[in-house]
Amino acid sequence: MADEVLFEFLHMEIVSQFHQSGTKEEKDQCISKLEALGFRVGQSLIERFTKECPRFKDELDTMKFLCKEFWNSVYKRQIDNLRTNHQGVYVLQDNKFKFLILMSTGKQYMESAPRYLAFPCGMIRGALSNLGINCIVTAEVSAMPACKFQIQIQRS
Amino acid sequence: MADEVLFEFLHMEIVSQFHQSGTKEEKDQCISKLEALGFRVGQSLIERFTKECPRFKDELDTMKFLCKEFWNSVYKRQIDNLRTNHQGVYVLQDNKFKFLILMSTGKQYMESAPRYLAFPCGMIRGALSNLGINCIVTAEVSAMPACKFQIQIQRS
Repeated sequence: MADEVLFEFLHMEIVSQFHQSGTKEEKDQCISKLEALGFRVGQSLIERFTKECPRFKDELDTMKFLCKEFWNSVYKRQIDNLRTNHQGVYVLQDNKFKFLILMSTGKQYMESAPRYLAFPCGMIRGALSNLGINCIVTAEVSAMPACKFQIQIQRS
Repeated sequence: MADEVLFEFLHMEIVSQFHQSGTKEEKDQCISKLEALGFRVGQSLIERFTKECPRFKDELDTMKFLCKEFWNSVYKRQIDNLRTNHQGVYVLQDNKFKFLILMSTGKQYMESAPRYLAFPCGMIRGALSNLGINCIVTAEVSAMPACKFQIQIQRS
């Protein structure tokens, strides 16, 4: 229990610290700083989590690991729905995303949602990057606290 | 297990992000930013941890809670030694402080230790502040990974 709130509180305070920082320029950097932070945490975590894992069969297999074991370790629940167009786009839907549950659900709070999604987007990108998959990750909220993460694979 | 590394990794990356940020002025603010972050996290945590607790008898009783339950919840071990001069100074010694264990132990790394102690100092100050005790918290490392936190009560 304690650990869980530690991570949540620390994340919340980082978001607020980054967002409050002085100049307008710093505020604009808030999202990208959070994303970068998430990226590095994701890289470290996936290394730890996959230490004892056999190699993944393919991309879809990797995504399934991300939706189940990885998500469960970090957010205490699995991704509710995974979809793909089989052309390099994956959509992960979490119907009760932890960082959004703490927020009020009125429409007027929607605009602050991106601040709370930048870190998780970065974390997904970091985890996949360390598994050899380069991608762009974006998040979309239509009704809080549900959230969709879209992963677009970058073929090189 | 997962939660524990989540908090550790997130803390490490925050330290490195704050420290790396651009200008010299921003670097100088690194310690105080980390301390402020710790303060707010400490405030939130102590509220959660003491929700079901009876009122503390006195200052020493509060310190004991901090050394045992609080420290154990956050760092998975208790403070090894608590001393006081009975005049408002308390010294808490952790012989294997978690954030220092991850660092190499050579003397040359001592200078980066303060970066990893600012957040915990703030966290202690925040926790005590929410229990009605105003104080100044400093940390001292003589041999890694041991660490002493000195709490000086501010009587008003």
